[in-house]
Amino acid sequence: MSQTLRTIPHHDGYYMPPEWAPHQQTWMIWPERTDNWRLGAKPAQRAFTQVIAAIAQFEPVSVCASADQYFNAVESLGHLKTKHPIRVVEMSTNDAWCRDTGPTFVVNANGGVRGIDWTFNSWGGLEGGLYFPWDLDDQVARKILEIEHCDRYRTDGFVLEGGAIHVDGEGTLLTTEECLLNRNRNPHLDSRTIERVLREYLGIEKILWVPEGIYEDETDGHVDNMVCFVKPGEVLLAWTEDRSDPQYQRCQSALDYLSQATDAKGRKIVVHKLPLPAPIVSSEEESADIDRSYHCKQRLPGSRLAASYVNFYLCNGGLILPAFDDPNDSVAAATLQKLFPNHQVVMVPSREILLGGGNVHCITQQQPSGKN
Amino acid sequence: MSQTLRTIPHHDGYYMPPEWAPHQQTWMIWPERTDNWRLGAKPAQRAFTQVIAAIAQFEPVSVCASADQYFNAVESLGHLKTKHPIRVVEMSTNDAWCRDTGPTFVVNANGGVRGIDWTFNSWGGLEGGLYFPWDLDDQVARKILEIEHCDRYRTDGFVLEGGAIHVDGEGTLLTTEECLLNRNRNPHLDSRTIERVLREYLGIEKILWVPEGIYEDETDGHVDNMVCFVKPGEVLLAWTEDRSDPQYQRCQSALDYLSQATDAKGRKIVVHKLPLPAPIVSSEEESADIDRSYHCKQRLPGSRLAASYVNFYLCNGGLILPAFDDPNDSVAAATLQKLFPNHQVVMVPSREILLGGGNVHCITQQQPSGKN
Repeated sequence: MSQTLRTIPHHDGYYMPPEWAPHQQTWMIWPERTDNWRLGAKPAQRAFTQVIAAIAQFEPVSVCASADQYFNAVESLGHLKTKHPIRVVEMSTNDAWCRDTGPTFVVNANGGVRGIDWTFNSWGGLEGGLYFPWDLDDQVARKILEIEHCDRYRTDGFVLEGGAIHVDGEGTLLTTEECLLNRNRNPHLDSRTIERVLREYLGIEKILWVPEGIYEDETDGHVDNMVCFVKPGEVLLAWTEDRSDPQYQRCQSALDYLSQATDAKGRKIVVHKLPLPAPIVSSEEESADIDRSYHCKQRLPGSRLAASYVNFYLCNGGLILPAFDDPNDSVAAATLQKLFPNHQVVMVPSREILLGGGNVHCITQQQPSGKN
Repeated sequence: MSQTLRTIPHHDGYYMPPEWAPHQQTWMIWPERTDNWRLGAKPAQRAFTQVIAAIAQFEPVSVCASADQYFNAVESLGHLKTKHPIRVVEMSTNDAWCRDTGPTFVVNANGGVRGIDWTFNSWGGLEGGLYFPWDLDDQVARKILEIEHCDRYRTDGFVLEGGAIHVDGEGTLLTTEECLLNRNRNPHLDSRTIERVLREYLGIEKILWVPEGIYEDETDGHVDNMVCFVKPGEVLLAWTEDRSDPQYQRCQSALDYLSQATDAKGRKIVVHKLPLPAPIVSSEEESADIDRSYHCKQRLPGSRLAASYVNFYLCNGGLILPAFDDPNDSVAAATLQKLFPNHQVVMVPSREILLGGGNVHCITQQQPSGKN
């Protein structure tokens, strides 16, 4: 049995490695709910399949699928020819966001791998959460850790999603005030206490508080759609020059903050700008075939979607980049290929994922290599 | 992705190892259905927990539990102190008989491990099967093989349960006519064709057809409750001297058959007799708190239960033996300890398992060691 530990990862010598550290595999969840994904989730399943296929050229992928969808998932993915194996494991979930419901893996110097099982409340619980209930999602991290024989840290009551944080592996963490200080996450904790939990659980020393994430991002501004590390001391910031866009001020505030910030090592932060695609809104057609449901936030036509190239995913030698059918697709690809010379940039069509509320980074979770 | 192979295991160099070959782990399923297990399956869950705890002193155990029971299973098993790890993986099933619904693992000389995913029809389909539907059970083997990254042989339409066969690892297989030639299994195949499938899939050369299994065994006489191998050339036969018991003639017929049989190596078979417990019937109380259900064979009070010590399970250095609170418990334990000097005999109370229709061997499935 994986142990449930009541100790503190940092005290045990564990810390969260950066995304570019070697992975054992990637975890994902097969999308299914017809009140969030249009047309019975079939277009989303195709889009996820393309992401799975892309990642499996670089590392193994485990895909969680419900009992109802198990056969469909295993048959759909069974036809892919990939360099690394794809496996399907049965798991019941409330939706398909493994970044936010999967464990945050931590490692130690001896190759130990454990996982943090944060409390999940559907991005805001009863105050703005996106669906109800979220009980199955809150068990995803534990189930993954059990399968992998990894011990588990459970933070009783500390609400966090993996998409709300990025680390550089050298003591610095990126997050947003908009999300982590939102009263629908941990209203009983002040920012100092939240900082302490992050330090103790992730083994970091300094937290960089970007004010806000992407405009209309329903996660309350997850940092992983707005800013990420390129390497220690360098970040990539989603950027627009369009002053008429409500996103403009958000980018300016982030730049202002990051330009004056130093990291855990005392370095000034180098900020690379990554252009955003032109604003994207959902169409009448794209909203028409979503089941109306008591349980789930309604997706109305004409909604601004939180599209950003920053929501890419790094795997072993690969960089899976969302494409938006926008002129900036090629700019983003070229910029990232230059900044990540050791990774091969692979673009995947992402609109069907975006329509469901996130993108490539949101639907993936890396499991670092180790001796487990 | 585990590959689904359309080739023949024997042609690929694969064969089924005997149960005493080294195991990587044991697979089991957490009992749940309240129309088969009394009192909300709680007594059965306690009995299974004792079996899990006993095995985990000898080797790792993976326990499949439904989404509804996942938390209960993981919390119930989390308190056990065992030498080897126990993990819980989510899996939807129709019931808890991993011997019959799990894969039959096969190995090759290079440490390769694959699995056979026989078609499962609930011990007889629409002609005497025990519950309906059985769709989830028929997917158990595949799901286990996926988790373990083992390639899978699927025999389209060949119905077999793991409890219907025993092998000695040297080319001989034990089965019963009562089960394998029953028209509710493979009525479209004659015995010659069934023999060919067994040869090709299990890598054996000779099939020993014991006429019948245990009286009133609802599996239609699975061999694993009646006869098993002690080692190549030696078998253990469930035995009664009580001429008034309908079981008597079954034992005689088996002895008559085995006494004149030779195995794949041309050896005469040595038959050891293992006394049965005195006949056991279910009580009024034991039948009172089982949900009445459209889906499941009704368990009536006063039913004769198919109790047999032959339904033990061999794990790495251990022999898990059902106890029936019968004077023959100690006779069986002593007999087996003598016949298996390299295994430690551990008795577990089995009545709550027996009430559900099987015993220790029926609820376990060994995964042999290998390089997978």
